[in-house]
Amino acid sequence: MREFNSIGDSQKGNGLEYIQSFSPLLNTHLEGNFKVATLEEIEDAISKATQAFLVFRETSLHERAAFLREIARGLLAKGDALLHRAHQESALSLSRLEAERGRTIHQLHLFADWIEEGSYLQATIEHAQDERIPKRKPDLRKMLKPLGPVVVFTASNFPFAYSTAGGDTASALAAGNPVIVKAHESHLGTNEMVSDIIIQAARKTRMPDGIFSNLVGKGNELGRILAKHPGVKAIGFTGSRAGGKAIFEYGMQRDAPIPVFAEMGSINPVLLFPNALQSRREEIIRDYVASITLDMGQFCTNPGLLIGLRGSSLQEFITGLAQQIEKTQQANMLSSSIWERYVETRQNALKQKGVELVVQSNSGEKYKAIPTLALASGEAFLENPNLHEEVFGPFSMIIACENAVEFDEVVQKLQGQLTLTLIGDNQDFESYPGVMQRIDQIAGRIIFNGVPTGVEVCKGMHHGGPFPATTDVRFTAVGEDSIYRWLKPVAYQDCPDELLPDALKEGNPLNIMRRVNGRLILRSPLE
Amino acid sequence: MREFNSIGDSQKGNGLEYIQSFSPLLNTHLEGNFKVATLEEIEDAISKATQAFLVFRETSLHERAAFLREIARGLLAKGDALLHRAHQESALSLSRLEAERGRTIHQLHLFADWIEEGSYLQATIEHAQDERIPKRKPDLRKMLKPLGPVVVFTASNFPFAYSTAGGDTASALAAGNPVIVKAHESHLGTNEMVSDIIIQAARKTRMPDGIFSNLVGKGNELGRILAKHPGVKAIGFTGSRAGGKAIFEYGMQRDAPIPVFAEMGSINPVLLFPNALQSRREEIIRDYVASITLDMGQFCTNPGLLIGLRGSSLQEFITGLAQQIEKTQQANMLSSSIWERYVETRQNALKQKGVELVVQSNSGEKYKAIPTLALASGEAFLENPNLHEEVFGPFSMIIACENAVEFDEVVQKLQGQLTLTLIGDNQDFESYPGVMQRIDQIAGRIIFNGVPTGVEVCKGMHHGGPFPATTDVRFTAVGEDSIYRWLKPVAYQDCPDELLPDALKEGNPLNIMRRVNGRLILRSPLE
Repeated sequence: MREFNSIGDSQKGNGLEYIQSFSPLLNTHLEGNFKVATLEEIEDAISKATQAFLVFRETSLHERAAFLREIARGLLAKGDALLHRAHQESALSLSRLEAERGRTIHQLHLFADWIEEGSYLQATIEHAQDERIPKRKPDLRKMLKPLGPVVVFTASNFPFAYSTAGGDTASALAAGNPVIVKAHESHLGTNEMVSDIIIQAARKTRMPDGIFSNLVGKGNELGRILAKHPGVKAIGFTGSRAGGKAIFEYGMQRDAPIPVFAEMGSINPVLLFPNALQSRREEIIRDYVASITLDMGQFCTNPGLLIGLRGSSLQEFITGLAQQIEKTQQANMLSSSIWERYVETRQNALKQKGVELVVQSNSGEKYKAIPTLALASGEAFLENPNLHEEVFGPFSMIIACENAVEFDEVVQKLQGQLTLTLIGDNQDFESYPGVMQRIDQIAGRIIFNGVPTGVEVCKGMHHGGPFPATTDVRFTAVGEDSIYRWLKPVAYQDCPDELLPDALKEGNPLNIMRRVNGRLILRSPLE
Repeated sequence: MREFNSIGDSQKGNGLEYIQSFSPLLNTHLEGNFKVATLEEIEDAISKATQAFLVFRETSLHERAAFLREIARGLLAKGDALLHRAHQESALSLSRLEAERGRTIHQLHLFADWIEEGSYLQATIEHAQDERIPKRKPDLRKMLKPLGPVVVFTASNFPFAYSTAGGDTASALAAGNPVIVKAHESHLGTNEMVSDIIIQAARKTRMPDGIFSNLVGKGNELGRILAKHPGVKAIGFTGSRAGGKAIFEYGMQRDAPIPVFAEMGSINPVLLFPNALQSRREEIIRDYVASITLDMGQFCTNPGLLIGLRGSSLQEFITGLAQQIEKTQQANMLSSSIWERYVETRQNALKQKGVELVVQSNSGEKYKAIPTLALASGEAFLENPNLHEEVFGPFSMIIACENAVEFDEVVQKLQGQLTLTLIGDNQDFESYPGVMQRIDQIAGRIIFNGVPTGVEVCKGMHHGGPFPATTDVRFTAVGEDSIYRWLKPVAYQDCPDELLPDALKEGNPLNIMRRVNGRLILRSPLE
């Protein structure tokens, strides 16, 4: 470990304070005294990013794509050392981390392909009409351009895919924005290794110095300084509601507010319709045991709420689920603070009025998760907003509704969610028109007869949703379209061809899809 | 005048308070005691909109297009009565108002065509890959859907095109969102007439009751209540920075923040490069006298700042401009409060250190604008942020820079703008690479050798910009793309075909453009 902040190409650690990663797996601090960035180092990172932006945004789509692919190559080349450190820091299994690294590499390639395809620029051309009466129509050309330096707050639960070189970083860099990463305190070593890979990739592909910086901070101070800094032009955040809301507010309360996309997790309700529960109970139990306990439920899409109708089917479902959950192999949680928070929020949920513990796997051990299934009535849910809050970890609550009316009421009370899952057959869906009418107002993704965990990274994915799932219902955190968080339109009126960005030049030198006088003109590889 | 609030189809005015429109043209209050909406009426409007949304968003693209076209038809059918009332209320000329009504009608048709074309839904389909290893890829389908009830704050300076049936209303309705208009106090009669046209059009085209309401308020209270109401899902605002910022803050500080797009005007700098000023001075003077004084400068794109290099060319330009401005035919301003504000901000600008009055057309008359040209040094501009603020009305300030370095510094100091205009030839542009490198960070639209006034409504237009021009640099207030302010993505995972929205059904019953497995598939009218 070098233990320094990366300010572009420079390594700096002039501060006196340092922090260490604590391993919840080994119950010990790990190698590495990571220097907390000084105010001067933070200023340097932003100032370098601001300068680098002027060059970076002029790089070609192919140059930026090559840079992203080089990061992907570096992640793989780093081999087991990287997986091993992430394993120690996060307690996630090596196989999970290997898969997550694969997803991170996939994401980088995806964005490389996406920008090279060029349609994301949304190049739009309207030719002048010099003879129009009563007034000449000017030549107007519009395209999307990067916003400027983006700060990325890394996630505890995805040390690769939503951290240093994760989706936020990849999409922001792909769009042409410099990125300043705020390292996550729980995986500082992993962060440093990945940060070095990015900086080496930038050098190798001749990107300007300053397009990537990596800063270590203690508590909330670094985040606050970054979010309020006038040189920062947008923010991506993945984490808790409290953290996301604080960063969002800093971003909104600046002299000049900036786009802040915070993805703050979700309780991911699952609606268990009666026919399906009766006919496919065993299959549903099997799927849900796996979904609830996968990596100790430490996913923003973990199904925290299962809503059904009281009756023998639901009872048998609960019994079956409980039997499986009780047998679950326990594992350590991501960090000591996440474990502490889980213990606290789980306890708090269990002591709410009308909440009954169905089963918990036994464990008193430090940092070990306790998979837990609880039960409450529809009435309790309707009366107590505390039951609507996320318990981050392997905790799910069944809501048993008295009847169809109450089921409908419970659905209407749901907060904004990343996902909503419907377990039902066609007759079920027809019997609940009021529920079906509202599903797309609740969640960004609606899953039919599946599980919410597992977020496919592709153009068809939407990983977002109404507040409190995210701070802007109009954007996604996953998939190609997540690039739009970091882009703004700019229009050129009567601009001489030689001064236009290549994407808007009359001859279409980039050979990209464009909308010309209202009609889409596709380049050859598309139909 | 009926003088009531329209709560969908119902006319209500149970309050005791009323307000009147004051005519700055006639210096008198006009006919109509417009009842201030009561709290109950506000609740009713939002509740009706929430209910109507469930039906409205299911209307077909053609049904909504027919509704928009019927509003357009109604605007024209209302004939001179509408123009006459708007003329009395705004003091804008009948010919200007006729043109503005034409633009409003054009906008409605544009959005009708735009939604019927269907590509705005951004329908995206990724087919399942059942055999994929290690994990099945699910079927994922995504499209844009309306947000819910949108509140529109109408603009004083566009009684038609950015008011009751203006761009914000048209785009929000086109997207499938109910609209609640907050009437502008300066043109209450025009507002009522247009509101009636919208409601009649909704009836005629069988839109659900409640998709449009129109409320009258006094001071800031109605705006505050609407912006903070949980039933309101997005806000469009056109007006002053103080007003826009207040509404934005209400929207961000709610329990569940919502999208707020406030377009708050701009100082619209014009860069006068030396070669162009020398070779085309007379033409530039002619264009700018017209642009500065058009409708008494009451445009968000009025050129408030002209930045040049000290020397004989600039001096002759100032002299020529001054001669023309002095001769300008004066006219009344839009409202008494805008006139009062102009008098105050103009005085304030003129008394700043280093600001010199070049010319003003004589007038002491109440409500009459005083076209004014002022002059300040680059140094004064760099030192005094007060000179960066908009003076809404026919006020422009020349900034005379000592040299190229100061010219560059002044450009770097500019706040976010709706427009930036470059008056120069190719040699000019080559000589100022530092300026040219930054233009797209300053403004949403960059105009070459033209004037910023005149905002073409089309797909190539971008009417937006960094704060303080707007509250979100990623969206436009004008043109087809302004619809994206009011839309959110929703993804369906493994959804049975019969439950999918038509836009996502496998057979493409709407015959719209879609992206299927990464490739764009165009319907026939496109290439």
